[in-house]
Amino acid sequence: MTLDFQAWSRDVAGQVEAALSELLPAGRIVPARLHDAMRYSTLGGGKRVRAMLVYAAGEVSGAARERLRIPASAVEMIHAYSLIHDDLPCMDDDVLRRGKPTCHVEFDEATALLAGDALQGLAFQVLAEYKLCDSAERQLRMIQQFAVACGSRGMAGGQAIDLESTGKALTLPELEFMHIHKTGALIRAAVLLGYSCGAASEAERKKLDRYAKAIGLAFQVVDDVLDYDGSTATLGKTAGKDSKQGKPTYVSAIGLPRAKQMAEELRAEAHAALEGIGPRARRLAEVADFIVLRKF
Amino acid sequence: MTLDFQAWSRDVAGQVEAALSELLPAGRIVPARLHDAMRYSTLGGGKRVRAMLVYAAGEVSGAARERLRIPASAVEMIHAYSLIHDDLPCMDDDVLRRGKPTCHVEFDEATALLAGDALQGLAFQVLAEYKLCDSAERQLRMIQQFAVACGSRGMAGGQAIDLESTGKALTLPELEFMHIHKTGALIRAAVLLGYSCGAASEAERKKLDRYAKAIGLAFQVVDDVLDYDGSTATLGKTAGKDSKQGKPTYVSAIGLPRAKQMAEELRAEAHAALEGIGPRARRLAEVADFIVLRKF
Repeated sequence: MTLDFQAWSRDVAGQVEAALSELLPAGRIVPARLHDAMRYSTLGGGKRVRAMLVYAAGEVSGAARERLRIPASAVEMIHAYSLIHDDLPCMDDDVLRRGKPTCHVEFDEATALLAGDALQGLAFQVLAEYKLCDSAERQLRMIQQFAVACGSRGMAGGQAIDLESTGKALTLPELEFMHIHKTGALIRAAVLLGYSCGAASEAERKKLDRYAKAIGLAFQVVDDVLDYDGSTATLGKTAGKDSKQGKPTYVSAIGLPRAKQMAEELRAEAHAALEGIGPRARRLAEVADFIVLRKF
Repeated sequence: MTLDFQAWSRDVAGQVEAALSELLPAGRIVPARLHDAMRYSTLGGGKRVRAMLVYAAGEVSGAARERLRIPASAVEMIHAYSLIHDDLPCMDDDVLRRGKPTCHVEFDEATALLAGDALQGLAFQVLAEYKLCDSAERQLRMIQQFAVACGSRGMAGGQAIDLESTGKALTLPELEFMHIHKTGALIRAAVLLGYSCGAASEAERKKLDRYAKAIGLAFQVVDDVLDYDGSTATLGKTAGKDSKQGKPTYVSAIGLPRAKQMAEELRAEAHAALEGIGPRARRLAEVADFIVLRKF
């Protein structure tokens, strides 16, 4: 009997939480405050969507579950680091994240800066340390592509574009360009990392790439809708923040109804991309639904 | 005819500068401001001691020079990122670096933060992208060890210990513990990376490791002496800063004469570590002399 999505996603979240707890240095190890901050911001929270994507994509290529916990953890470490730095006073200056005080509020700015830095290093460490697939050459390529997704032409670049865009009215293509980098790159990297842990084929990789691009954008569109619609309590982060800070959002660019419609179209596009793969793509399809239909 | 040290180090610096310029995204590529900041803080400055160590250690194992430019660049990227973040207001809050305004002064804090983040990612990207040695398995181990040196149990951890120590009188062992992490880890990683690009043996690796530990500490002791003795103009960074900020230094811990003597002893220890390797270790011996005898 296969698990329903809720049970499966709980299982994935549990596995990743256990792996992260094992991979992150214990809080008692020197420098204790830094390790505490790294654990504080990485453990015990978040929807673990990126980890789910690693596992779901790994199912398509028949990757061993035992292997997937490493790339899933690495992706969540990078995500956690990006949130810590994004919340800093010189960036978004936010005090609430995942329903808790942000890292620099709970600790201090310098510790938060270093915790983010160290989490990025740790992500690459574990990706190189553990066997992810049967070919070391392929594993090097996986690390390289993952690094591109994190860097100036990926996530960090997207944050820079975001900075430059604050207070400006972006066109839809400009907004898309920003989010393809800021959110989309890591989501795409999560899918490709997980897929590459198994028996990967070029044809299927292209399908997954198309899927990943659709859900990467969908994720951001839905985030903007929820940021506009939701309350701080249900979001676990400050609601309405983006529009208050003068940041362009899909809601501000195309309005609420069209943003909702766009999310729905992207969900359909994600499902279409998976066509022909069959039941191995079931979890990916479910994650696409989860991303678009989530209410929190 | 072999080059004298000055000509050799100029040659290394030129090769690394060219490699970095090629590996860093051009300033015209979007996000332009971020790429400008990355180039501003990485190119055209610094003594390139860590790059020299990569090349010098590579000579011991007969590594191809063409390959060494990649690890040398990666180490310099990590070094540049650590300086950018170290200079931020929430850390050392410094305005001068390598004789120029620091990154956040020339650009802004958010851009400096992201430039450091992206440089770290780029370092891992190039280490995984280019062929560093004849075995992909070994290359993965090299990346893993390098990541450890950058992370919470290496450089980032050393910076965290540094933060916690400000205003405290450290014992000599505590001071050593801090610098083994803060400066020593990346210097050691540079030596081992370069060495691993060629025909490495376990016996020689142990010698180089001992060498690296000695010069890593020597580097910091000399830095403290110069910070105490030197002027801002010759240092290219704010002189006397560490003692003013209440940071423990070797000079404050053991006094100027003993700090100078300690640097000399560490230089002797570095030379002793290289015994038996023969002329292949010439450059490493010269870099040790350069580190201890430099006046700027």
